[in-house]
Amino acid sequence: MRWLKFTADRTTSWGLIEGDRVITIDGDPFGEWHRTSRTHLLGDVKIELPLVPRTFYCVGLNYVKHLKEAADKRGEVPEIPSRPEIGYRAQNALIAHDEEVIIPTIASEKIHYEGELVVVIGKKAKHLDRQEAMSCVFGYTIGNDVSERTWQKADRGLWRAKNTDTFKPMGPWIETSADLGTMETVVRLNGKESNRFRTNDMIFGITDYIVEMSRYFTLWPGDVIWMGTDGSSPDIKAGDTVEIEITGIGTLRNKFVAEAVPA
Amino acid sequence: MRWLKFTADRTTSWGLIEGDRVITIDGDPFGEWHRTSRTHLLGDVKIELPLVPRTFYCVGLNYVKHLKEAADKRGEVPEIPSRPEIGYRAQNALIAHDEEVIIPTIASEKIHYEGELVVVIGKKAKHLDRQEAMSCVFGYTIGNDVSERTWQKADRGLWRAKNTDTFKPMGPWIETSADLGTMETVVRLNGKESNRFRTNDMIFGITDYIVEMSRYFTLWPGDVIWMGTDGSSPDIKAGDTVEIEITGIGTLRNKFVAEAVPA
Repeated sequence: MRWLKFTADRTTSWGLIEGDRVITIDGDPFGEWHRTSRTHLLGDVKIELPLVPRTFYCVGLNYVKHLKEAADKRGEVPEIPSRPEIGYRAQNALIAHDEEVIIPTIASEKIHYEGELVVVIGKKAKHLDRQEAMSCVFGYTIGNDVSERTWQKADRGLWRAKNTDTFKPMGPWIETSADLGTMETVVRLNGKESNRFRTNDMIFGITDYIVEMSRYFTLWPGDVIWMGTDGSSPDIKAGDTVEIEITGIGTLRNKFVAEAVPA
Repeated sequence: MRWLKFTADRTTSWGLIEGDRVITIDGDPFGEWHRTSRTHLLGDVKIELPLVPRTFYCVGLNYVKHLKEAADKRGEVPEIPSRPEIGYRAQNALIAHDEEVIIPTIASEKIHYEGELVVVIGKKAKHLDRQEAMSCVFGYTIGNDVSERTWQKADRGLWRAKNTDTFKPMGPWIETSADLGTMETVVRLNGKESNRFRTNDMIFGITDYIVEMSRYFTLWPGDVIWMGTDGSSPDIKAGDTVEIEITGIGTLRNKFVAEAVPA
């Protein structure tokens, strides 16, 4: 099933995508819901952010090539993580598919994309073992972990480098069934492929993370885990459009624009 | 005004504390609200977590003594931050006043408290200057930034050291007026004072943080900023009770207990 949060006729609802149509749902996928007779053409609705997570988890270093390229740039030997350690991103930065990433006037030209698989949690869960781990997963969406690399280098944490308003596009929808083994992530800059990697080629997989996280944390419906990225990004400039396609899920597309200078 | 989230007669509501009574409010303090005729004795209600913030901000290093003591323990020279840099905590870890902090079976004995002033945002705001900064503040509450120091030392980030379930007590209520200049934070371990500092003796104050954060982030109603702590903590063990009192706000009290071993 493919769950979409959308606005049509000035009303925001959950819907199910079937072919080129959206079936309006009463309720939400994490609780009670039922189909209605109200439908729209997918092309006619405004696609909204699927959700604002209660806790916004994100893996920092989870693909070997990305680690090596980042270490090379710093003239260092890459250090491969020996266990799954989770990080966080901030809710203020989230935007929907087709909304604009705004490059602040105070940012440098070192704006990069990171195409990521996003796991959406569907059930309250703690202390899951490897057999149970995937049972709390509701589905998958796509994230673009936009980063300002000069801030990332200068700061004690990732606060503005990763969490500036609009730096976390997520969507376009949540797909509940996905074949992790055959997934590819393809990134296109202005329509031209700039990056491609096997989505599940992670240092630690989804099961590893859920088992380790749930030793300490209660996972809640609507929590998201961004699973990290492979490869690197050219510098993005105002006017560029980044598309991230993941097999079986869809394509997240966002245009980058310059911040309007306050009058 | 003193805003309390509470449960009585199986219903959770916002209320206003007046003397020893709670006036039940219809609505919430960030939107439309009005007083009702339903009141309870404060001692008769269950005090709830005031809110789950949309984004959960926290200052890491904001008091000189805390920095020096931490650096001493590492045999290092303390590095005083030269600008206000914000960090984050995770929503899963929040608990209310009088709820129990659960020490996991897999934790070490290095469990510490950190008594902190918590700023509660009341208005959507961005790009605030020094004159406007405090206008987005709704009020103040109290936080205990419980930490497991061996995890803090071993890990790449603060994920389990600071964000394990129940490690973020917050409350008991939100006080809208406070005299920052005369505030003191007093911490008591099992009723005996263990720490005391001038709450506003921060390296960077609330205005500094709001100005800097709002250059990059939209602040939302219900966001919280934990302002950091001074001094250090003894090791807390199961059975201990920690009280954090801040002048003009109140006292946040939580007992620490050992995690039940699963059967």
